[in-house]
Amino acid sequence: MKTDRVDTLLRDGPILTMDPQHGLIPCGYVAVHNGRIAAVGACQPGEKLPFASMDTVSLAGRLLMPGLVNAHTHAAMTIFRGLADDLQLMDWLTHYIFPVEKQLTADWVLWGTKLACLEMIRSGTTTFCDMYLFEQAAAEAVDEAGMRALVGEVLYDFPSPNYGPPAAGLAYTRELIERWQGHPRVSIAVEPHAPYTCSPELLRLCNDLASQYDVPLVIHLAESAYETEDIQKRYGARPVAHLDRLGLLHSRLIADHVVHVNAAEIARLAEAGVRVVHNPESNMKLASGCAPVSAMLRQGVTLALGTDGCASNNNLDMFQEMDTAAKLEKVMVQDPTVMPARAVLEMATLGGARALGLEDRIGSLTADKEADLIVLDFEQPHLTPVYDYVSHVVYCVRGADVLSTMVAGRWLMCDRNMLALDEEPIFARVADIAAKVRQIVKA
Amino acid sequence: MKTDRVDTLLRDGPILTMDPQHGLIPCGYVAVHNGRIAAVGACQPGEKLPFASMDTVSLAGRLLMPGLVNAHTHAAMTIFRGLADDLQLMDWLTHYIFPVEKQLTADWVLWGTKLACLEMIRSGTTTFCDMYLFEQAAAEAVDEAGMRALVGEVLYDFPSPNYGPPAAGLAYTRELIERWQGHPRVSIAVEPHAPYTCSPELLRLCNDLASQYDVPLVIHLAESAYETEDIQKRYGARPVAHLDRLGLLHSRLIADHVVHVNAAEIARLAEAGVRVVHNPESNMKLASGCAPVSAMLRQGVTLALGTDGCASNNNLDMFQEMDTAAKLEKVMVQDPTVMPARAVLEMATLGGARALGLEDRIGSLTADKEADLIVLDFEQPHLTPVYDYVSHVVYCVRGADVLSTMVAGRWLMCDRNMLALDEEPIFARVADIAAKVRQIVKA
Repeated sequence: MKTDRVDTLLRDGPILTMDPQHGLIPCGYVAVHNGRIAAVGACQPGEKLPFASMDTVSLAGRLLMPGLVNAHTHAAMTIFRGLADDLQLMDWLTHYIFPVEKQLTADWVLWGTKLACLEMIRSGTTTFCDMYLFEQAAAEAVDEAGMRALVGEVLYDFPSPNYGPPAAGLAYTRELIERWQGHPRVSIAVEPHAPYTCSPELLRLCNDLASQYDVPLVIHLAESAYETEDIQKRYGARPVAHLDRLGLLHSRLIADHVVHVNAAEIARLAEAGVRVVHNPESNMKLASGCAPVSAMLRQGVTLALGTDGCASNNNLDMFQEMDTAAKLEKVMVQDPTVMPARAVLEMATLGGARALGLEDRIGSLTADKEADLIVLDFEQPHLTPVYDYVSHVVYCVRGADVLSTMVAGRWLMCDRNMLALDEEPIFARVADIAAKVRQIVKA
Repeated sequence: MKTDRVDTLLRDGPILTMDPQHGLIPCGYVAVHNGRIAAVGACQPGEKLPFASMDTVSLAGRLLMPGLVNAHTHAAMTIFRGLADDLQLMDWLTHYIFPVEKQLTADWVLWGTKLACLEMIRSGTTTFCDMYLFEQAAAEAVDEAGMRALVGEVLYDFPSPNYGPPAAGLAYTRELIERWQGHPRVSIAVEPHAPYTCSPELLRLCNDLASQYDVPLVIHLAESAYETEDIQKRYGARPVAHLDRLGLLHSRLIADHVVHVNAAEIARLAEAGVRVVHNPESNMKLASGCAPVSAMLRQGVTLALGTDGCASNNNLDMFQEMDTAAKLEKVMVQDPTVMPARAVLEMATLGGARALGLEDRIGSLTADKEADLIVLDFEQPHLTPVYDYVSHVVYCVRGADVLSTMVAGRWLMCDRNMLALDEEPIFARVADIAAKVRQIVKA
């Protein structure tokens, strides 16, 4: 038997591949080389394999699975975590979020995004889709952290603390796209905020820009009852029809939240190939409603999962988000069989990869895909006994159960030791920022 | 300054006392002696205090708070964790739970309860209320683990794998009460299962027994739409009125779930002083509905929080349960201001103590109460920055953030090291039990 030298070999334990061909391998191995998955298969503990590595990881008592995809967040908002809760939306925005965001700087976004990367790496997320301000700084943080992300500058009709007037936002986005083109882990999307904050003209220009560069277009859509009323009043159409008229419904559109949609709108989103990101915890906390995800699933909508930002969740734990996604839909439609664990897990892995246009590169442990993977510690009371790994991943595992996190073949965390970023300076800088935020809010 | 020697001194960090007098102490101390809280107060870091101890714990970068009260669970059902999910209730009961429970033994309950104690100690729960079979074994497990619990044998109209015919259940409960009388941490309740599984006669006898010994009476109440229909059909009254007629609505009644109640019924429960335990995650997963907890709170109902058993949650993490309790009610009543973090935290601490009749002994860090407390690790990305400790405890902290757990002055876990029970033999025994469960389900 010829032996191939590989960078990393994980072996002798259960592997949840999310690959339709392999499914769950009760005892198997994954070989990683040059940032990619070289091979996946079943094995016996201790069996001689045609791979050798200086970095061999035992999977006994553990579970290997793909890294999670957080398909909608505002990473730097970690700096506002718990600043204000349990308020009416306008109260929260007017008295807390708007005053502090007016003072936002690239430095705050850099450190806030690094803090978010720490939290995501520690809780098993390897890829995320970001929408916020000063996204050049966010992209730099992602690059430094070694994570994978689709990022984009939020665009709207009012002046931005970053780029100034709306037209400059398009130019800023174009620059971002060109600057990051060809980066192995960071890519750029065009990101108009929402139908109620962007004029039809801005939405059209955003769509043209995304189309010109063939990059995703990201928008908040049909998040609140207020939005439906407002768009109906202003444009004589509900949000989905409004975007449809403007030519925005296509397979490069990533629509976040999508709570207030009816059956005909779901059918139209499915037909157009729009990718929908479900954010159950944020929608609960802000009392926005619950996206009709089981109906979307039945209609064949591509579904992903996201945590939204830390100002409205207040964490980035995708395992907990999966748990909530499974349970919320059951109680909402009064049927315990909807959104079974497998469907939710798919949203957080392959579904996220599809939504972000990365399905050929990540989302499952499949030979030739990039090596984005996590190792979970299953030797714990709350994961004992094991009848069904998928059930545990959705209903019992939490971020803290992630032992090790790899992106593109590089360990970002190993046995809970953070390798990607130095934690202490991030905590210190964020404490300084929080002190300033407190002063702004008090003023 | 006279110096008192105390068993344990925790000092120099934030303390969430849950005592209305003290509230949050930004930097303070708690002295523990002879199992009780000797003193609580504010201090400066390093300040000379009138206490000395060989066991001094620094609270820098941490948070000290009361241990959580899980007011409704079926602890031993950890052995069925993830056995079957996402099924219709009758399908789940008929094909999984009933067949395995037929084979239940005291040994299974002993080891399943020990496993539950490990999970609860690790996630910051110090007291729980249990309802299951072979509860002598459950009480022994609690005693060995050093936890605090109110336990009771489930009583219903059909034969039990433990005590046999219904009448024997009452005798078994009486024996339990007498055997455990005077125990410092374990007490016994009378626990008829539910209005739809217990005849009016059995309910009356249970009520008499509880009254005779002045112990709590625990029951599942108004959990599902099915129950309301069934009780209405059989007795011409809805579940709350049915219990009212039988004389069961009083301040020693602990009613679990209480989902399907209207405004008049809530008013009646408040008036009668009935204690209600909210189980949001179980109610979501089984699609039972959502208890109208903000309405109950407004009416002054004593509210506690519980996880329910691991067969329908599938974990015992009370921090996550608090998060869900806060978020679920917001989306259900479409108001982000209901069930604010403070109200939910009270349910999981003082509210739980009140529900279980232990408010004089636990639920807050107050001088002379028993020393049931937990220390949380706040130096973590997902708890950074801190604007509001209460917000973080409800929306960000998870079980894994608990460093140390003390019950009645004894450390059950210290810096994540389990001192209460030996974990390995528990994992091994539960693995054996799970193998048998798998065979029963396959057969």
